[in-house]
Amino acid sequence: MKDYRKILEAVRDQHLSVEDGLKHLGQLETEDLGFAQIDHHRALRKGFPEVVYCEGKTPEQSADILVRLSESGEGPVLGTRADERVFDLVKGRVPGMEYDRLSRTIALRRGLAVPIGEVAVICAGTSDLPVGEEAAITAELMGAAVTRITDVGVAGIHRLFAHLEELYRARVLVVVAGMEGALVSVVAGLVNQPVIAVPTSVGYGTHFNGITPLLSMLNSCSSGVGVVNIDNGFGAGYLAGMINRMGMSE
Amino acid sequence: MKDYRKILEAVRDQHLSVEDGLKHLGQLETEDLGFAQIDHHRALRKGFPEVVYCEGKTPEQSADILVRLSESGEGPVLGTRADERVFDLVKGRVPGMEYDRLSRTIALRRGLAVPIGEVAVICAGTSDLPVGEEAAITAELMGAAVTRITDVGVAGIHRLFAHLEELYRARVLVVVAGMEGALVSVVAGLVNQPVIAVPTSVGYGTHFNGITPLLSMLNSCSSGVGVVNIDNGFGAGYLAGMINRMGMSE
Amino acid sequence: MKDYRKILEAVRDQHLSVEDGLKHLGQLETEDLGFAQIDHHRALRKGFPEVVYCEGKTPEQSADILVRLSESGEGPVLGTRADERVFDLVKGRVPGMEYDRLSRTIALRRGLAVPIGEVAVICAGTSDLPVGEEAAITAELMGAAVTRITDVGVAGIHRLFAHLEELYRARVLVVVAGMEGALVSVVAGLVNQPVIAVPTSVGYGTHFNGITPLLSMLNSCSSGVGVVNIDNGFGAGYLAGMINRMGMSE
Amino acid sequence: MKDYRKILEAVRDQHLSVEDGLKHLGQLETEDLGFAQIDHHRALRKGFPEVVYCEGKTPEQSADILVRLSESGEGPVLGTRADERVFDLVKGRVPGMEYDRLSRTIALRRGLAVPIGEVAVICAGTSDLPVGEEAAITAELMGAAVTRITDVGVAGIHRLFAHLEELYRARVLVVVAGMEGALVSVVAGLVNQPVIAVPTSVGYGTHFNGITPLLSMLNSCSSGVGVVNIDNGFGAGYLAGMINRMGMSE
Amino acid sequence: MKDYRKILEAVRDQHLSVEDGLKHLGQLETEDLGFAQIDHHRALRKGFPEVVYCEGKTPEQSADILVRLSESGEGPVLGTRADERVFDLVKGRVPGMEYDRLSRTIALRRGLAVPIGEVAVICAGTSDLPVGEEAAITAELMGAAVTRITDVGVAGIHRLFAHLEELYRARVLVVVAGMEGALVSVVAGLVNQPVIAVPTSVGYGTHFNGITPLLSMLNSCSSGVGVVNIDNGFGAGYLAGMINRMGMSE
Amino acid sequence: MKDYRKILEAVRDQHLSVEDGLKHLGQLETEDLGFAQIDHHRALRKGFPEVVYCEGKTPEQSADILVRLSESGEGPVLGTRADERVFDLVKGRVPGMEYDRLSRTIALRRGLAVPIGEVAVICAGTSDLPVGEEAAITAELMGAAVTRITDVGVAGIHRLFAHLEELYRARVLVVVAGMEGALVSVVAGLVNQPVIAVPTSVGYGTHFNGITPLLSMLNSCSSGVGVVNIDNGFGAGYLAGMINRMGMSE
Amino acid sequence: MKDYRKILEAVRDQHLSVEDGLKHLGQLETEDLGFAQIDHHRALRKGFPEVVYCEGKTPEQSADILVRLSESGEGPVLGTRADERVFDLVKGRVPGMEYDRLSRTIALRRGLAVPIGEVAVICAGTSDLPVGEEAAITAELMGAAVTRITDVGVAGIHRLFAHLEELYRARVLVVVAGMEGALVSVVAGLVNQPVIAVPTSVGYGTHFNGITPLLSMLNSCSSGVGVVNIDNGFGAGYLAGMINRMGMSE
Amino acid sequence: MKDYRKILEAVRDQHLSVEDGLKHLGQLETEDLGFAQIDHHRALRKGFPEVVYCEGKTPEQSADILVRLSESGEGPVLGTRADERVFDLVKGRVPGMEYDRLSRTIALRRGLAVPIGEVAVICAGTSDLPVGEEAAITAELMGAAVTRITDVGVAGIHRLFAHLEELYRARVLVVVAGMEGALVSVVAGLVNQPVIAVPTSVGYGTHFNGITPLLSMLNSCSSGVGVVNIDNGFGAGYLAGMINRMGMSE
Repeated sequence: MKDYRKILEAVRDQHLSVEDGLKHLGQLETEDLGFAQIDHHRALRKGFPEVVYCEGKTPEQSADILVRLSESGEGPVLGTRADERVFDLVKGRVPGMEYDRLSRTIALRRGLAVPIGEVAVICAGTSDLPVGEEAAITAELMGAAVTRITDVGVAGIHRLFAHLEELYRARVLVVVAGMEGALVSVVAGLVNQPVIAVPTSVGYGTHFNGITPLLSMLNSCSSGVGVVNIDNGFGAGYLAGMINRMGMSE
Repeated sequence: MKDYRKILEAVRDQHLSVEDGLKHLGQLETEDLGFAQIDHHRALRKGFPEVVYCEGKTPEQSADILVRLSESGEGPVLGTRADERVFDLVKGRVPGMEYDRLSRTIALRRGLAVPIGEVAVICAGTSDLPVGEEAAITAELMGAAVTRITDVGVAGIHRLFAHLEELYRARVLVVVAGMEGALVSVVAGLVNQPVIAVPTSVGYGTHFNGITPLLSMLNSCSSGVGVVNIDNGFGAGYLAGMINRMGMSE
Repeated sequence: MKDYRKILEAVRDQHLSVEDGLKHLGQLETEDLGFAQIDHHRALRKGFPEVVYCEGKTPEQSADILVRLSESGEGPVLGTRADERVFDLVKGRVPGMEYDRLSRTIALRRGLAVPIGEVAVICAGTSDLPVGEEAAITAELMGAAVTRITDVGVAGIHRLFAHLEELYRARVLVVVAGMEGALVSVVAGLVNQPVIAVPTSVGYGTHFNGITPLLSMLNSCSSGVGVVNIDNGFGAGYLAGMINRMGMSE
Repeated sequence: MKDYRKILEAVRDQHLSVEDGLKHLGQLETEDLGFAQIDHHRALRKGFPEVVYCEGKTPEQSADILVRLSESGEGPVLGTRADERVFDLVKGRVPGMEYDRLSRTIALRRGLAVPIGEVAVICAGTSDLPVGEEAAITAELMGAAVTRITDVGVAGIHRLFAHLEELYRARVLVVVAGMEGALVSVVAGLVNQPVIAVPTSVGYGTHFNGITPLLSMLNSCSSGVGVVNIDNGFGAGYLAGMINRMGMSE
Repeated sequence: MKDYRKILEAVRDQHLSVEDGLKHLGQLETEDLGFAQIDHHRALRKGFPEVVYCEGKTPEQSADILVRLSESGEGPVLGTRADERVFDLVKGRVPGMEYDRLSRTIALRRGLAVPIGEVAVICAGTSDLPVGEEAAITAELMGAAVTRITDVGVAGIHRLFAHLEELYRARVLVVVAGMEGALVSVVAGLVNQPVIAVPTSVGYGTHFNGITPLLSMLNSCSSGVGVVNIDNGFGAGYLAGMINRMGMSE
Repeated sequence: MKDYRKILEAVRDQHLSVEDGLKHLGQLETEDLGFAQIDHHRALRKGFPEVVYCEGKTPEQSADILVRLSESGEGPVLGTRADERVFDLVKGRVPGMEYDRLSRTIALRRGLAVPIGEVAVICAGTSDLPVGEEAAITAELMGAAVTRITDVGVAGIHRLFAHLEELYRARVLVVVAGMEGALVSVVAGLVNQPVIAVPTSVGYGTHFNGITPLLSMLNSCSSGVGVVNIDNGFGAGYLAGMINRMGMSE
Repeated sequence: MKDYRKILEAVRDQHLSVEDGLKHLGQLETEDLGFAQIDHHRALRKGFPEVVYCEGKTPEQSADILVRLSESGEGPVLGTRADERVFDLVKGRVPGMEYDRLSRTIALRRGLAVPIGEVAVICAGTSDLPVGEEAAITAELMGAAVTRITDVGVAGIHRLFAHLEELYRARVLVVVAGMEGALVSVVAGLVNQPVIAVPTSVGYGTHFNGITPLLSMLNSCSSGVGVVNIDNGFGAGYLAGMINRMGMSE
Repeated sequence: MKDYRKILEAVRDQHLSVEDGLKHLGQLETEDLGFAQIDHHRALRKGFPEVVYCEGKTPEQSADILVRLSESGEGPVLGTRADERVFDLVKGRVPGMEYDRLSRTIALRRGLAVPIGEVAVICAGTSDLPVGEEAAITAELMGAAVTRITDVGVAGIHRLFAHLEELYRARVLVVVAGMEGALVSVVAGLVNQPVIAVPTSVGYGTHFNGITPLLSMLNSCSSGVGVVNIDNGFGAGYLAGMINRMGMSE
């Protein structure tokens, strides 16, 4: 609430007229790009820079926002759902930008300390990997150490049990699953830590592009599960990264 | 196809005119109760008498059909979704009829040999018991020995593992589950036998009265699963009973 | 993984035959009530005793499980979706049991230390209170200090802003909303902490008993949100309580 | 009702036989293009010429109707959902036609007086712009002055507050949002004027191509909101334009 | 934005400390009833007092809010979806309160000037009347003169045509329809004024409690239609009342 | 179109002013009951009096309309979805009214000639009878001879074949089925006549109160099928009655 | 039932053994193409040859069936949903085959008498024409005279009234509409003849590819309407053609 | 449970430390390919090697898993939903691999005994063949003799009756149908054996890509039916193959 306070103080000290105070309440923090206003203070307010969701934007729009954010801050920058054309437009202009083809993310790993805590990202099958990797990269940009566990669907449940120690060691677990999403209930039944569940759109017929695992996860018989939107690896990684930091000396 | 054959033979031997032959092709086997035609030959044709689904019928209609079936055959008779009033109308007229309050079934256990094979009926939770019991009783009326396993939901997966031997011993398994229905995938991943999955309407919110476990079961990552309608314990027990008899000397 | 270890050690030391070891792998921890097996070790494994979800069970079944759990452990016990008849059957048998009419919960507040951290439970409207209170009581049984904020729907957004300090102070926030659920996006846009979103079934027409706020929350434009099932106050309170403890010296 | 009156008057004065009167009741106003009958009187009857919805028509059909309407009237003409091929077929034949690539509209700004009143078109995000622009252009062709406000989603609610004066100044507000559509409730909670809400199909997973914001808007906890179909910028701009004229000296 | 201004002015003039200014930004306008905060300034801000939606509240809660609102303001007060028990609790405490059994509304018609403009409320069938009456009473409390037209469904379209003059005379039209909701398209095709469409839950089978007319109205081939939630007579009357006042000297 | 003609002729002959002509275009045929306008000319226009759909009306409203229609015409009168209280209010006032408990219809069989043609009403099961009977009675009031065939579901297809001659003899067939509705496809595959398909709400789980047979019927692999709403026996009987009269000397 | 009779007669006369009689009951009428069995007797049984639905078949499969049907019969042949490649494969092999690009039908107009009766095919908008034309061509191949009426949507209802005489003259009406499908209710309210309603997939957003007009048509407030599947012009034309022949001297 | 036993025995005999025992419980059976862990013991555990579902994997990933499985086992290998590029990558590396274009399966028919029992795979129409063939090939790889019956939809039910003997002879029947799926009910009503029902996505409009036949099959009025996911030929063939082996001397 510091910003509100500063404006009130300036008004009190008559460094600011009431008219200008009114304007500053909202406007000072924003800047106009013509098509998008960017909140430079967001990094302070949320502890993480604005992430650019590139779908539904032209490659040029996405690239311009990414560049602008890179120039105006010092922390990490993340572009999700970015096809390679966005990266092509960005890479020459911002040194250090990386593109991950699997998860279609663009990342600038900058201003990051030694990874802390541990987030486990667990994928039921090979086709859940793109979503899982988006979660993993996001959590890493949030400062987390990330363990990746793959291909441990419940059809062969002994494969999951080979990873019990990693499950128990993590501070937060992200479980990514398509099909019927049963992995979430099994994992959450085994551990005492928060589980973030991500349904994926991998399946056919009555899978309905991810509705089936979504419903399955929302109705899990195990406790301690929070669910995010279908294929929303970013959202899961972000929430896991947030929880992972709790009580850590950063 | 025996019936068609008999009619053709009678026509060939001129014991039956062509006109009458045409009529006999369908009519001989049916009888008119005014509101319901009952196929006495059905027990022969399907190896099991017609089951009376009592919902949507008046108690009097249900009772009349149950009595009629009991009088005209010698095998077992089953009424499902029967409230107690149906049983009150039937019990005095047919000796040996039993009512099971939990599953709301009326059963006449008659003409049954020593139980054969083994059907395991596995319920995830306490509230799945009524549907599971309907399946169990149906399978018993189909001649099966039935093992009941209860309260083995995946939230505490060690509880299921305490029953591994029973799972491996059964010829067919009926898995009854509400919530997210994950038990089906875990069980089917452990065994080599056919699994009949029954979603139940137990749950709330996005459970949608059983749609969630239904979808989960249809999308199971484990193979060897056939699914029946929500709460259709009868259908599952019937199919399991049918499979259980295969290759047994009855 | 301690239990597996103990069994292996006993087998190694020949205190346990292989046959018995096999049985102990699963069975030792379970006990048979006839209709429900209770995992006494669950409190250790999950840091919280098994909660009894009373819907879909008879009052007698619910009461018996609650009493048994109270007798066999020393920690808190919680019954959710319990109507008053369950409490009537329990209160004489377990001293200290309390019933909360609003949230329909039965709680035994036992073995709890001084509340730690802070969970904020924020309800959009008066009719969201029962679900919010279920979340609050659950979080308290998980050891959390809970702040309740009520009637701050976005139709009059200044009402929410009167609580900014409480929002910023909490370690985790549970946001409970029916209607269109917009409160979640606004709150999560203001804070840097994890937000657990609970849609409620309060509404009419296209509200679809909570589907509308559920979808709204899953599609929130703000980051850091995990969603639970419609009306699942318990699930939200449990997850919030779990997160709240992270990094706290308990 | 003037037309009905004229026909009755002509019949009364015997300038028209009863037979012909019957025919004129409907036919006089219509004309046959082979594939589409155009109501030249519509501009009088509705205060605005027939708009051509180009989707589902061949470019040739769309172009022919647009040209015909331009030749037979003197007011503005609008083609929506028009791809560039339609414009290519029209531009040489009707001077003054303009194409807007963003909103895919073809407009002939003709016969328009000085803009009156004020319609605010508010877009939550960059990807809502095409729909918002369709609304804005439509309202302009209805005679309105239009203010465009962009990228003010509730994830950073201070961005919206920087535009409070524009919100308060408008006579009608069109709010265009995808994601969870929460912007509608926040804006309608701040103002005293009618709000026309337009859900957009921008999103993924459970967004269901716009169903989520549609439901959210229909269930808004704020009063004074009318909703149009998903992506229906034209419908919103038309209704807003209609309301904007009320009580203005045109 | 007057309130923000006043606070800034007080801070500038040092009548208010910065700390207190921060609190006043939100808190001054609210008051705590224990279960509901009421915004006394809302009548000023929205030109209409807070309406009490009584469903989901206990009769006592609803009554207390209604009484409080009546005592603290001087304008009209409206309770919707109120069953008679709410009225019984209120009528002795607030003179002038009226109950309308058809629409289940409680109204205090106080501080209203001579009705202005004209809102037409058109119901397709007899069973749409409760929703239509809720709209009509709401519009009246917004200051409008209201014309009610009933039983003019399109199955006998000549019945609608008997009311053409009333349709043309209104400033805004509210069309209330169940079944397939076709009346909206026919009416909106005939008039030049804004049409607010209200689907009702009257129907059976694939009517889905109002989804069919809702979808029909959202897809109307006629322009100038804004839709509200199923059975939301209040929302339609409120929006119509708002539009009706535009440009009128009140 | 006779009415329009008469008005024009009166205007031409100056027996009617233009103003009055305008009014007469719609108003002459309607009469105001306060809550419902009844079209006395409808019997002429549609060859059948207005049917009263009693659901959603109070018993008093339904009864008043039925009495009024009986007094003002000479043809048959039909009330559907009428509970017995409506009949109690009507029977003393209109001699000859009959109530059918199964289908909940009130019928005045008056002004009917010798039944013509033949409509076959075929019900799959016992619980489809109420809907089937509504169809049969409606068709009879349309002048048709009706054959009722019952309990011929496809699970025992030989039962249907016993009725082949009746199927071939009918001019139109109404097929009423719940469950999966497969009877429609089988019947329509056997005959050359129009089939009107009526899904019923009899079923459970994924039956969705009739959606499953509705979808099944709309997707029938047999040609010559028209579908009506779930449980809409009246609609099917009406359409069948209409078709049955075609080309008959009435 | 003639075929069954012939077989029985042959068996009676001992021209056929019982074994062979059993086989002939089904097999005689069928012939094996390897991928499709064609019923040559279908033309007799249904009064119309088997129609080939070409979607989901390879062009080669479709063409082979069309050629075979043309060679083995003497009546008309129809291919629906046929892309031009099917026609290219057929046209050289069957003289007289025609392709209609708009409706994507292949027709062999052979063995048709003078058209009888009259079927009116009414399309709401330009984009409904392909479906309407499929209906019209099908009805023509069923022997009907067809009147086509186009672009008479209810947004400008006077356009429909210009065609009243054609509506009254038809024996059956096919109404084809997308959007909200209101045209069906208006037309069926005006006429006394059967109306076959065809929803089309033309629309966007909540149109759901035709679900909205389908639901609208199933819930029509006008009587005498039978509905077919979305875009099923063939089904509507077939049913209309069937009804049109009733009572005509063919 | 043999593996668990071996580990316990090794621990008992001190050939294995407790630590290693813990690891072996899960890990011994798995092997890491980097992107997929393959369970070589699965063939023993399930009587059938792991099937590779190729959709959602890159052709390279699919091919690598197929090759690995072929090299490490001696039984049959199956790839489903494989496009030709997968086969191109595999065929040179594994002798004996076959590709079936219709069903898009890759099969290595190795280690198979003389086919046993009989599975009938029945397809309603030509366009159901790809799914049916996937089922047939799967059942063959499970050791079954398979009979294929095609184009026997219920629109011409005599075509099905020509195959009665094949229906009666099979041990299990797989019924594959799109459209309304009525074939399942008819077949299951005729036979006494288990029926596995497979809905296909062949259809249009309200077919909803297979939901209609799925619902139809789940609600079948005939008993003895288990349903699999839409287009899941593999699942049906697998379950049928499993049942077919029961009680056979293999």
